[in-house]
Amino acid sequence: MVKLTQSFEFAASHRLNCANLSESENRSLFGKCNYPHGHGHNYILEVTLQGEPNDSTGGVVDLPFLDCVVRERVIEPFDHRNLNVECPEFSEVNPTVENIARAIWQRLSGAFSNCQLASVRVWETAKTCAEYSGE
Amino acid sequence: MVKLTQSFEFAASHRLNCANLSESENRSLFGKCNYPHGHGHNYILEVTLQGEPNDSTGGVVDLPFLDCVVRERVIEPFDHRNLNVECPEFSEVNPTVENIARAIWQRLSGAFSNCQLASVRVWETAKTCAEYSGE
Amino acid sequence: MVKLTQSFEFAASHRLNCANLSESENRSLFGKCNYPHGHGHNYILEVTLQGEPNDSTGGVVDLPFLDCVVRERVIEPFDHRNLNVECPEFSEVNPTVENIARAIWQRLSGAFSNCQLASVRVWETAKTCAEYSGE
Amino acid sequence: MVKLTQSFEFAASHRLNCANLSESENRSLFGKCNYPHGHGHNYILEVTLQGEPNDSTGGVVDLPFLDCVVRERVIEPFDHRNLNVECPEFSEVNPTVENIARAIWQRLSGAFSNCQLASVRVWETAKTCAEYSGE
Amino acid sequence: MVKLTQSFEFAASHRLNCANLSESENRSLFGKCNYPHGHGHNYILEVTLQGEPNDSTGGVVDLPFLDCVVRERVIEPFDHRNLNVECPEFSEVNPTVENIARAIWQRLSGAFSNCQLASVRVWETAKTCAEYSGE
Amino acid sequence: MVKLTQSFEFAASHRLNCANLSESENRSLFGKCNYPHGHGHNYILEVTLQGEPNDSTGGVVDLPFLDCVVRERVIEPFDHRNLNVECPEFSEVNPTVENIARAIWQRLSGAFSNCQLASVRVWETAKTCAEYSGE
Repeated sequence: MVKLTQSFEFAASHRLNCANLSESENRSLFGKCNYPHGHGHNYILEVTLQGEPNDSTGGVVDLPFLDCVVRERVIEPFDHRNLNVECPEFSEVNPTVENIARAIWQRLSGAFSNCQLASVRVWETAKTCAEYSGE
Repeated sequence: MVKLTQSFEFAASHRLNCANLSESENRSLFGKCNYPHGHGHNYILEVTLQGEPNDSTGGVVDLPFLDCVVRERVIEPFDHRNLNVECPEFSEVNPTVENIARAIWQRLSGAFSNCQLASVRVWETAKTCAEYSGE
Repeated sequence: MVKLTQSFEFAASHRLNCANLSESENRSLFGKCNYPHGHGHNYILEVTLQGEPNDSTGGVVDLPFLDCVVRERVIEPFDHRNLNVECPEFSEVNPTVENIARAIWQRLSGAFSNCQLASVRVWETAKTCAEYSGE
Repeated sequence: MVKLTQSFEFAASHRLNCANLSESENRSLFGKCNYPHGHGHNYILEVTLQGEPNDSTGGVVDLPFLDCVVRERVIEPFDHRNLNVECPEFSEVNPTVENIARAIWQRLSGAFSNCQLASVRVWETAKTCAEYSGE
Repeated sequence: MVKLTQSFEFAASHRLNCANLSESENRSLFGKCNYPHGHGHNYILEVTLQGEPNDSTGGVVDLPFLDCVVRERVIEPFDHRNLNVECPEFSEVNPTVENIARAIWQRLSGAFSNCQLASVRVWETAKTCAEYSGE
Repeated sequence: MVKLTQSFEFAASHRLNCANLSESENRSLFGKCNYPHGHGHNYILEVTLQGEPNDSTGGVVDLPFLDCVVRERVIEPFDHRNLNVECPEFSEVNPTVENIARAIWQRLSGAFSNCQLASVRVWETAKTCAEYSGE
């Protein structure tokens, strides 16, 4: 079994806020991430697949197919979007980097037949990242 | 003369749109950057000062002072903000990376007495950057 | 379960030397790392926590709390310090990157209640890193 | 148990092509990677070892020894080489990043006595990497 | 005047060799870069343009146009190519990073009407780069 | 004229302190950089040369020669050293990043005959850098 990781990028805006908390509780809990007009990040997405390299091609996955799947299911709907407003996963759920990783896992799981989705890592900044492995 | 460069970061959202153009012209001109709900970036700001290192301290500038000036004049008003809505420079001017670099230059010029502001560089993504040197 | 990784930096000096070896044995074993006056590095610390994102906030951990814990327990005592002289862990133990990773794990373990410390990674240079997961 | 990772670099050329496929099938499958005259990459190799840090030295492995092993077994035969032509592993097997990771694992396994080879990661570009852990 | 820099990547193979020198002189002069079967790199290209940001759009250049020009004139003919064999500039000239930077300048000069080509930088590895500014 | 930049690394310890100031003045001026036992950094050195690429070799400089000069004049005396104690330039001058850049320029100037030393850049951390161009 070999793991193959491919990176992607998307730029999006978001805001952290809990509807059931007061304005001052939200400000206290999320700090600048709660500023009312939102902010944004250059997200880095690392998708890791795992499987046996194909005897003939030598690849765990057909890279153009992987690229196509991720662009269609994640980059197109997330890139240059306001995550809270335009992505249904985050209409009532905070678009934290943890929840973004889980949402991307949901969008990608089931797409691959000869290899397995092993993990999804999302970097919100160069210093903060979340990883989800489906369990 | 030695040049001293210090990097800073801020995360902000923005949208590119010209008020005097139609919706389809804006979409054609700015592509995804014109999506109506905005998006965002992790901006990297590199401030370069130039001067003679102080004979005693060995520094071109007092770094805590530089840090304080940039935080007060740029990071506080730009970080976790919607540039179009919350920064007066961009109420009628597109917050392109070029214009952001010039706006930051304006905010910093005049702040330093024993050294000169040499350039302001702003990276919007890891691949795109603008530099302004005041001329 | 989601893993959340946050990066930190500290600059420190150290020297590798075994008290029970001769001067020439130490020089042969550690090379330049044994030079008598010490040297230093910009260390990068990656702390990984693991847990269920909170249903309300969407976070595995309260990030300002994580930041506070790591600053108080690791950054304050290690940053701009001579590890051999100023950190009790290394009074009789070599401050190799492996031992630094274990010492930081010890300092952080037990600090988190709703999530678990999953791993501590320390980069001594851009090319060398140690990871400890508590076992 | 602590994991110690050391990075190495090599620059090599290669070409992806399956002898049992037609020219147009190969072009369709591998795209630009099938161009007849080959191309190349700056490969980054991350070798991870795992073990108990030595009580006296504090290291999982003697770093100059690790360096020597990797240079002799991998860097010397792969660096500035045409992988298809000059490396026997790839005389009949495609030098994909997955197969390169497995080939390097084979070259390194068995070289270490007081610690274990834990994984081999190879970055072909800044966006694509393969990891092999021997199973 | 603002400078706008955009980065691009291409992967190519090459070999350094002077036709008028003997085999041993070439090996002595170029070392591993003279190995007979060639090797390769992930090249990073940074194109810098300079001009007044457009009053209406706020850009020094239309970024999709810049992208199109560089892809057509440089990336398409250089990416996944053997520079010595497939690029006419290097049929009799060594494809050093210095000469690659000059060749790219020649390919791009004259393409821009409302701004000027300011410099072309080419990184052959993370440690070596050449810059050409047309003089 | 083409500029050729080559990067080097060295790890060193240092301490900022002015002999003619009191202990509290030094602490106030330099903060953590004044801690009595010193600290350290992974310094990145970028040496830029400028000249006409040689008609035959295609290089601005013979890279192994450049490498040899920088290793002999800078890396050997600075790497894994305590700059205050072991480098004569800093026996009475603060080893700030600005002064380190100037000291390296002095050590390298005059070493190149067919090209010119154009600039010396020193990164003390990933966020702070000094550049000296000899004027």
